Amino acid sequence: MHTLFVLLSMISVVIIGSGNVASHLFEAFKNNKEATVVQVVGRSEVSLSEYAKQVATASLDNITHNADVYILAVSDNAIPAVAKQFKLKDKLLVHTSGATSMDALKDHSKRGVFYPLQTFTKGKKVDFSSIALCLEAQEQTDLELLQQLANAISKKVYLMSSEQRKALHVAAIFASNFSNFMYAKAEEVCQEYQIPFEMLHPLILETAKKIEQLPPKEAQTGPARRGDITTLEAHKELIKNNTNKEIYSLISEAILHTYGKKL
Amino acid sequence: MHTLFVLLSMISVVIIGSGNVASHLFEAFKNNKEATVVQVVGRSEVSLSEYAKQVATASLDNITHNADVYILAVSDNAIPAVAKQFKLKDKLLVHTSGATSMDALKDHSKRGVFYPLQTFTKGKKVDFSSIALCLEAQEQTDLELLQQLANAISKKVYLMSSEQRKALHVAAIFASNFSNFMYAKAEEVCQEYQIPFEMLHPLILETAKKIEQLPPKEAQTGPARRGDITTLEAHKELIKNNTNKEIYSLISEAILHTYGKKL
Repeated sequence: MHTLFVLLSMISVVIIGSGNVASHLFEAFKNNKEATVVQVVGRSEVSLSEYAKQVATASLDNITHNADVYILAVSDNAIPAVAKQFKLKDKLLVHTSGATSMDALKDHSKRGVFYPLQTFTKGKKVDFSSIALCLEAQEQTDLELLQQLANAISKKVYLMSSEQRKALHVAAIFASNFSNFMYAKAEEVCQEYQIPFEMLHPLILETAKKIEQLPPKEAQTGPARRGDITTLEAHKELIKNNTNKEIYSLISEAILHTYGKKL
Repeated sequence: MHTLFVLLSMISVVIIGSGNVASHLFEAFKNNKEATVVQVVGRSEVSLSEYAKQVATASLDNITHNADVYILAVSDNAIPAVAKQFKLKDKLLVHTSGATSMDALKDHSKRGVFYPLQTFTKGKKVDFSSIALCLEAQEQTDLELLQQLANAISKKVYLMSSEQRKALHVAAIFASNFSNFMYAKAEEVCQEYQIPFEMLHPLILETAKKIEQLPPKEAQTGPARRGDITTLEAHKELIKNNTNKEIYSLISEAILHTYGKKL
């Protein structure tokens, strides 16, 4: 009987950061067969998972020199300062920001971007395999390494320019931040009339699922879509908060306009 | 051996209408043990399911006289006219509209409301058991019958006044119509930069699920939430469509204001 040993070379990763993106990335690489996190560099141990703490160090001075990829998962405005402190000039350094150009790392010839398009909540697990990962790199070989790394945790890997990624980030703000703000407005209206907001959960979920089958422009319903001015006016009377009244009017007018209806 | 026969009295229902709400209600009552649809009155047979056609009639003149509940599932502005044509004055007539007061049926002493809070798409099945049903009735015995009927198809049955229901409808417009409009804006930004909109599907779904665990006001993220003016300005530059640029600014300002951030 023969035993065959295969030597697999795993991609070794260092995560710099201890926030939401850092800890979710760490979890995504856990038990992965193609990549492994060898170190997490984070000022705040508190926010790291128990497992991540085992490989954690608090200072960039103690950073390991022999990893393949260094992922800078810090907040957008901290990127330049932390990148400046990163002294391993021959190592591939990537950031995870949608809004930041790759050239924010311009002092590093081996630079790139590893941007997961998702909203992360502390402590709430996400299925990384369905998250879109947007990659960019200055050098072709680095891009190939990033692709290999991304494919290890996600089925949806995209190569895009800094400009496209920034536009995608704007789109994500409409799709996620702004829709969440609409949920918040809905909750305020519910509170004004002692209605439990949970009633709206199934509707919110169904609305989000609908656009997987139908483009949002076709999925649009409601009084503004129908040009039902009577209902729009009645609704404005019902909303007690003046800012919310104004938002209701403005978005309704934009919908009326989109579908060629008149006020 | 004994055979025990139990006589169950099923609630018999007539659905007036052949649109989205009518056909989804019909499906919800199919194979139900406590209620049965004995007739569907609809001008348009085309839009009824194959099964519904078997009990369909095209005219209110042919309506059966011995049902327990008559559900008027027509568009809001058709309610007064169709209610006027409904001549069975001793029968319970309910409408299914969120935006319409119960008194739109004021010629009928036995009147009520049976409002399912959901967005219905033709041909797309929904799980009725998780849909909130909002009930109202002029007479107490009728309200009890409606509760029995609602409990037969949903686990979430609420009694509310016409005013509360109208407010809930406004909240639903923020939560569903307006969030969908934000998805449409996101798609437009994607199109401007040749980005596939499907990339945003997982993010949209996660955002919708998040508020089942966290109130939307706490779940809010993004540059406006952080008061990151530099990113907001850069984003406005990126958006090519002027209306979308304006919507981006207005909602961002509202978020900044909500969280005490300054422009």
